[in-house]
Formats: sequence, C-alpha cells, structure tokens
Amino acid sequence: MSGERLIYLPLGGAGEIGMNAYVYGWGAPGEERLILVDLGVAFPDMESTPGVDLILPDITWLKERADRLEAVFVTHAHEDHIGGVAHTHEALGAPVYARAFTANLARRKMAELGLPEDSVRTVSAWPEQVDAGPFKVSFLPISHSIPESAALVIDTPAGRLIHTGDFKLDETPLVGEPFDPELWAEVSAGGVRALICDSTNVFSPLPGRSEQSVGPAIETLVAEATGMVVATTFASNVARLKTLAEAGQRAGRSIVLLGRAMRRMVEAAAETGVLTDFPSVISPEDAQDIPRDNLMLLVTGSQGERRAASAQLARGKYNGLELKEGDLFLFSSKTIPGNEKGVIRIINALSEKGVDVVDDSAGAYHVSGHANRPDLEQMHGIVRPQMLIPMHGEHRHLREHARLAEAGGMQSAVVVNGMMMDLTGNAPAVAEYIETGRTYLDGTVQIGALDGVVRDRIRMALNGHVIVTLILDEEDELLGDPWCETMGLPETGSSRAALIEVLEADLSQFLGRANPKTLRDDDSLEEALRRIVRQTAQGEIGKKPEVTVVISRLS
Amino acid sequence: MSGERLIYLPLGGAGEIGMNAYVYGWGAPGEERLILVDLGVAFPDMESTPGVDLILPDITWLKERADRLEAVFVTHAHEDHIGGVAHTHEALGAPVYARAFTANLARRKMAELGLPEDSVRTVSAWPEQVDAGPFKVSFLPISHSIPESAALVIDTPAGRLIHTGDFKLDETPLVGEPFDPELWAEVSAGGVRALICDSTNVFSPLPGRSEQSVGPAIETLVAEATGMVVATTFASNVARLKTLAEAGQRAGRSIVLLGRAMRRMVEAAAETGVLTDFPSVISPEDAQDIPRDNLMLLVTGSQGERRAASAQLARGKYNGLELKEGDLFLFSSKTIPGNEKGVIRIINALSEKGVDVVDDSAGAYHVSGHANRPDLEQMHGIVRPQMLIPMHGEHRHLREHARLAEAGGMQSAVVVNGMMMDLTGNAPAVAEYIETGRTYLDGTVQIGALDGVVRDRIRMALNGHVIVTLILDEEDELLGDPWCETMGLPETGSSRAALIEVLEADLSQFLGRANPKTLRDDDSLEEALRRIVRQTAQGEIGKKPEVTVVISRLS
Repeated sequence: MSGERLIYLPLGGAGEIGMNAYVYGWGAPGEERLILVDLGVAFPDMESTPGVDLILPDITWLKERADRLEAVFVTHAHEDHIGGVAHTHEALGAPVYARAFTANLARRKMAELGLPEDSVRTVSAWPEQVDAGPFKVSFLPISHSIPESAALVIDTPAGRLIHTGDFKLDETPLVGEPFDPELWAEVSAGGVRALICDSTNVFSPLPGRSEQSVGPAIETLVAEATGMVVATTFASNVARLKTLAEAGQRAGRSIVLLGRAMRRMVEAAAETGVLTDFPSVISPEDAQDIPRDNLMLLVTGSQGERRAASAQLARGKYNGLELKEGDLFLFSSKTIPGNEKGVIRIINALSEKGVDVVDDSAGAYHVSGHANRPDLEQMHGIVRPQMLIPMHGEHRHLREHARLAEAGGMQSAVVVNGMMMDLTGNAPAVAEYIETGRTYLDGTVQIGALDGVVRDRIRMALNGHVIVTLILDEEDELLGDPWCETMGLPETGSSRAALIEVLEADLSQFLGRANPKTLRDDDSLEEALRRIVRQTAQGEIGKKPEVTVVISRLS
Repeated sequence: MSGERLIYLPLGGAGEIGMNAYVYGWGAPGEERLILVDLGVAFPDMESTPGVDLILPDITWLKERADRLEAVFVTHAHEDHIGGVAHTHEALGAPVYARAFTANLARRKMAELGLPEDSVRTVSAWPEQVDAGPFKVSFLPISHSIPESAALVIDTPAGRLIHTGDFKLDETPLVGEPFDPELWAEVSAGGVRALICDSTNVFSPLPGRSEQSVGPAIETLVAEATGMVVATTFASNVARLKTLAEAGQRAGRSIVLLGRAMRRMVEAAAETGVLTDFPSVISPEDAQDIPRDNLMLLVTGSQGERRAASAQLARGKYNGLELKEGDLFLFSSKTIPGNEKGVIRIINALSEKGVDVVDDSAGAYHVSGHANRPDLEQMHGIVRPQMLIPMHGEHRHLREHARLAEAGGMQSAVVVNGMMMDLTGNAPAVAEYIETGRTYLDGTVQIGALDGVVRDRIRMALNGHVIVTLILDEEDELLGDPWCETMGLPETGSSRAALIEVLEADLSQFLGRANPKTLRDDDSLEEALRRIVRQTAQGEIGKKPEVTVVISRLS
C-alpha cells in the first residue's frame, strides 16, 4: 500500500457558509478513487450576483476526473448540501446515496430536470454500509434542523474518518433520531483518524438549545392570540412546523400550509415516514369558511423573500387570505445575514396593516440547528480523533475551530476550498492547491463567475448604458448623424438640454473633424466615440456610463 | 387668532430610519409660516438604488412654499439629519441654524458645493432663542452619539413643543453636556403641547447604557494587546474616539487617525472647543518609524464600506501601514442592518491575515446612541406632554411608540411621511395628505425615485441587455442584416451556437417575411423585434433580456 494516500479536498463550503462540496480520495497520487460528500448551492444577491438564479461550486476538477468518482453522498436535504446534485448529475455520472427523506427530495430534484430518479439510492442508517471503491460509507444519525441528517462514517484503508455534516447535539429533536452520544462513542471507539466537523457556530459561547425548548413559548403565544395567526420558519424545519401546527391545533385552530417549499417538505416527510401525527391541514379554499380567529397559517418566506408567502401576505390578499388589524405574525426563525432588509420590509408592511409581529429577538421562538462552541468541544471529546479538520464555515470560523481543536490536543489545520490535504500521516499536510470557485446558474445556462457577464450587469446597474449607432457608407463617410439611446440614465443634465442631444452633438462634432484613417478603423473609432460619450456624460450628469458602439458599414 | 393652526408635517424620517425632515407651521390654512427641522440623507444600496450617490427626501412641497419658510434648524451633525442641507440650500433659500459643532460641519458642506458659508448661523444652547416668524426656537442640549446634539424647544402661539432629535439619556457622555433631567423638567414645567420624540430603539427593553460604560473593557483589551491595534467606530462618535485614543495612550501607543471622515470630525470638534485634551496623533508617515506594538490606528469603515480605511487595511497595505498575524482589530460599533455582508467580508479578510478580530457581539465595546424603551418612558414622564408624536423610526417603531404613549395617558398618533397633522386641538388630527417620497442624487443630477431611471438599471442588472440595430433604405426595405449586441448575457445557450447569431438569424427570418406595413412603422417594428429577441433568448438561455431596438432609416 506504500505510495497510496488519503486525500481531502473541499470544493465548496470551506471558507464560506453554503455551497458544500467535499471530495475524499484514496490511491496513488493522481489516481485516487474518489467520493463526493454533498453538492450544495448558495444564493445570489443583487450586490454581487444580480440576475443569477443559483450559485454552485466550480467542480471542474471533479468533472475532469469523473471516471474516478465512485459515488456522491448527501448528508441532509438543506439546499446548501443537496441543491446542486441534480444540476451536476450528468457531468459527474456517479450514483447519489442518501437516507430516505433526503433521497426523496433528491429524486424530486432529478425529476424536475428530467433526470432518472433511480440515480438516487436510499440507504439505511448505520450500521448499513455502502461500498464505494476503497471506501465503506455509513450514515450515522445526528440531530440538525431538518429530518434525517447524518454524519458519514467513512472507512478507508488508512482508518476511519467521520464527516459530521451540519449538526447539533439535540437529545429531544421532536422529529427524527435524538443525538445518541453512546452510539457515537461506540463508533469512535476503535480510533478515528480525522473528524471533519461543522464550524458555523464556533463563536456561539453557550451550549445549544434543544428543538423541544421552543415548544412552550410558541404554545403560549398561539393560545393567547385573538385574530388570525401566521407563523413562518424555514420550510425544511419539519420539527418546528410540527410544533407550530400542534400549538395551533391545541388552540382550536385549523392549519393551512402556504408556499410550495413548505408543502413539499411536509409531503416528503410524510411519504418517508419521518413525520407522523402531523395535525391535519386544510386548503386555503376551505379556510375561507372558517372564522379567522380559528385559523393558523404556516407560511414560507422567513428570510423576507419577495415572492414567498410571507411577503405576499404582507402586501395584500394571497390565496384568498388577508391579514388584518389584531392578527399575529410570528417569525420562528433567525434572519440570515444579508436578508435583514427584506425581513424588515415585511415587518413594516405588516405593521401598517395593524398586525402584531413577534420575532426571535428575545430568543424565545427559535433555536439554531448548529453546534455551538461547547457542543463542538463535547463532540471532540466523544470522538477523540487524531486530526480535527474544521469544515463548513467562513475563514474566521474555520480558524477559530482549528484553534479550539489544537487547544484540545488534536492536530488541526485551516483548510479552505481548493486545498487538497493529505491525511495519511500524523497531521494534515497540504498536498496540492486546486483552482476552485463558483459557477452561476443563470436562467438555464451555467456561466463562470469570472466570465464577465455578471460584472457587465453590475456595471450597467451602477453606471447606466449608452448605445451609439452610426452608419458609414462605402467610402467610409458618415451617413446621417450618429444616434444615441440611453438606458438607466437621467434625461437631462447640467446644461438642461436632453442628455442624448448633447451626446449626439459632441459625437457629430468629433466625426465631422475626424481624419479618414480613424473612420476606417472600427476599433479606434469605437474607442474614440466611447471616450467622448464618457467625457460628455461626466460633464453633464457626473457619471461615466457603459457604452456600446454599433458601427454599420454599407459595403 | 381663530382660524390659525399649528401643523406638523414629516417629509422624511417618519416611517424609516434615516433622511429626517420635519416641517412645523403656524398660520391660517395654506398660509402657515414654516420652519424645517433637519434635512438628512439616506444611503443607497445595490438592491434598490444601484448607482445612486445619496437619497434625499422629496421636498417638492416645501420648495413650492419656500417663500413661507423662515429657517432650517439642524439638531445634530449625523448625515441622516444634516446630509441634505447643502444640496437643497439653493432651492429653499432659508438660513440654517445649528450649534457650533454642527454648524462647523454644515459650513464645510456648503463650502464643498461652493455655497456661502454664512448661510449657516451658530446658535448657543438654551436659553438663547431664534426668532423664526411665529416661532421662537431654542437648542436644548441632549446626549447622543455625536457632540452637541440638541432637542428643539419650539415656542408657538399654541404653546410649547419639544422636538427631541435623536437622543439618549446619558449622564456621563464623556464629550459634551450630560443629560440634565432637572433642566428638562424646568423647560417642561409650564406645560408642553407636544413632545415629538425619537422612536428608533422603542423595541429595546433594557435601559440604555452610558458612553462611559465601554471605557474599562476597551482599556483592558488595548492594554493586553501585543501587536498593532486597530479600532473602528462611527467617525462622528467623538466621545468613543477619545475613549479609544486614551486607551491607546495609556498602553503607550501612538495614535494614528485613518480616513477622511474621522480626521474631519476630530478637527471640527477641536475647532469648536467641544473636544479638549484628545491625545496627540501622529501621521501615517511618522507611524512608519514606530514599532507596530506601539501603534494604535483609529479608522473609518465600521460598516464595511469598500473604500473606507478598514476595508483597505483588510485588503492590504494602506497609507504604508499593514496588518499582520497577531494584530488586533476592534469593531467598537454595531452593524446597521443591510451592512452585515460588508462587515463579514472584512472580518474574514482579516482572519486570513491572522488578525484577531473583536466585535461587539458580547455587548462590551459599544453602546447605542438612542433612548431605549424605559428611557423613552422616563422622557415622557419628565416632559409630561399633552401629545406624544413618535418621530424617527420605521412604521413598526412609530406604532409601538404611539402605543407606549397611549398606555401612559398621552394623546398620540402614528404619523408617517406626508401626513400633515393639526396639533392645535386636544389631540393630533390629520389635516391633509401630502405627496412625499425620495429623490436621488445620481452623479451630479437629482432624479425622482419614480423616474424609471433606477428601475431600468435594476432590470439591466437582472436581465441583461440586447441591442438590435437595423437599417432600412428609402423604400423601407432592409439594408443588410439586423445586428445584435449583448451586454451582461452569456455568449452561448442551449443550441451551443453563439447567442448573438441565433438572435440575428431569428430576426432576419422575421424581417424577410414581414409585411411592408410593419416595416414602415417604427413602433410596431420595434415591438415585434423586441418580442422575438425575448422569446429566442428565453429558449436559448432561459431569461428574457431588456431590449433596445435602434432603427435607422436612410431617407
């Protein structure tokens, strides 16, 4: 076996929150047989990725080695772990393994893209093992904010690895298996070469709270409400949906689910037997016949998404339902950084309707799905790995987690996307740096983050766009006048004349005096016209727009 | 005096945080003499206002009545209260009154735009009064997070009003006057018709903390630091700057101020005598000769602004100074909603350099400048007004503040921008609804929020832009082929051919079959070509771009 090695290579999720994708390999350098753990997405924003639909990790490296890829394992069904599985399936070709609930959702994704659902294979929890080349992989249950999350126990010729996926230590998660420290100790008893471990909450100093702990506060709030009650949370948090629905039921309210994602999650949970005895729900149509103080709506849009049910309800009638003075709206969620403005917009729109909004600012109505600092220490202590590789987190989280591990006597390293680590020795060692990055799903096309497409969109948004057209005849002489159109620019500037006319006048003046050589050469003509437009605009309106020059030659 | 009335009309700041502008008037309806309190700005973002430089309240109503405007009073020098004073000065014409520190900064703004500095008049604190038509106005000192904040005591024929401006109840503010409850009680003793009162922190349940309270934690942190220390806070929080600088000085460090805004604030505070015994500062050049562990930098950019000093330092060398492993970076500030991503970007960039970042997540290194809920109640109790008008806050804040006031036995109302209230009676009553909104300073031009300029920019950013040009001869026949250019779109789509070529082919096909009538009419031709481009693009790349059609006719 000499000369073979065990490698770990994050392609996404290490150095950021979201977009998880981790490669493991075993074999001679350059010939390793590979598996991929998770293939998630991140979400675009107007500031850096306008118009983009989804952000995926750039898995070019893996695509080029698809013949060496044995399998894809998905730890759980959050979009930042499962969201890219279908989009990349044709390029990778490997089968996808997951537990039943996760597999159910993965199959829906395959079906949406017209891909074969049998590419997704359902695996039972530990001790069932999947053979994947040199690896044997098991799904070890762990609590998180979605049903059937699993860590992966990856047995390799160099020993056992445990990849936690996202997790918390919850012994009363309400839906799905409680965290079982004894099982984890037993799995770890024979020695663990490396624990590759969730880092997102390493800066949270207090032990995490159980999903069960929010129940009483929610029940009291709903019991005391007088008008209609609406609650939003992450659609995938099926346990929370159950808590909310049961609180509604106990208060004599009929439950309505609004939003496609929420109905899909509850459906998948019911189909796979994860969710039992969920209160019966009624349709929005049937809700019309029920007094509003006997209704409770569970709705999507906890992050203020403009098209989700919460935003629609904040704006007006949605599915025949409308909020009124005295109704209650509960955010049973936290706001993910970057989404604050959208959430605040909804809260104020609800305030204008006279709706009372309750959020988690006092910490009563939401708990995190991730392990806090003391929980991480507890996990380190149960597994007692030789190496601790911080996984899933921004640089600051990975760095802090590595420090924590080192303080606990473990070998550790800050490993970010693109760092291929050799885990064969006593400590993690850098084997190679791989080029990684992001690709964008834009409409139906995948584009590279560095293709310039999004850069041009941002520039148009910041600077506006001027289009100059001119026609030159067979003798390279100007036919008529140059013509300008603008988009995203004010109509008039400092001279009080129309911006377009000022631009056209300056362009005409230049063209009237331009030497024939300039007029013959598209590139230099274009450059000169662009320069004039930008200068004139700077003088008129104080900004330099993007310029497209279209030269038509009659020849 | 019968038939005359006292009016209050917010044009900005009521229904939002930022962009404060409040009109008061006295006189017969439609003939009131007016004063304006504050004229602030809000800041643009990529999501709703790409390319915009500043957001100002739409003061069209006031401009049209500029002949009735007696004066502008500025409560303090935060940008959301003072930022629009110079930009609107020519349109309004009225003199601007402020206390010395605020006036100093207002004059700088006038000078930057080439406006006369003597339009700004310095007023001493209460009991000095300014006569402004039917009003007598005094600046009553109140603590806030900037020197010389003042409430306005507005004496009117209908009695006394107090407009708090932004405030907190701080009896040890370190710089400027402590809050003086006895003075406030004395001023209120004769009865106050209405207290128009800051609402931003009404949801904060605990009493606010004094500026002084952060001193010990900052001093300990700086004393224990080993490498270079960098701290950022709001540039205008001169008291905090002093606390930080003194902590540095006590730890034997030389102080460097980085960032124009910070140097300007310290300068203005020193010039006006507000700031005495600030530790001496050295230039970035002189800092080169000092060991890094004897340096402390105070820098702009607490909100993650890309061009501020903190972001520059996170990226690399700035003014010859560079952060290294083991240095300390302190955010002595809170992150304003919407700025989280920028701040996190800096923290991660610093983490990559090995810099230890400390922020206020544990509440030790920053205090708010606004009155929390119990402080508001205390203020209500001191002033005991007949009416309480919640001012400065989003709808949710105003609504909650009005509830609080009503629970305390005061008349109140939720008054948002554009609601002209008659305060002459026993309770606030709506007199009229005025059209208000926002205007954008865009480069050097002021544009209306509804002009469509920014909407077009957002559309180009989301959808990309296609430019179609075609030439028609004297007989309305196509000369050559139609021509497409794209910006912000991928080069190829589902057919694997160049997007531009697919578009041009479909356009040519249409034009080849188009009936002569269509070719003669620019509008219908343009509409048809636009539709084809959008349809074809939808099929090729899954999105419908913005389309500009340029038709040139040789005639």
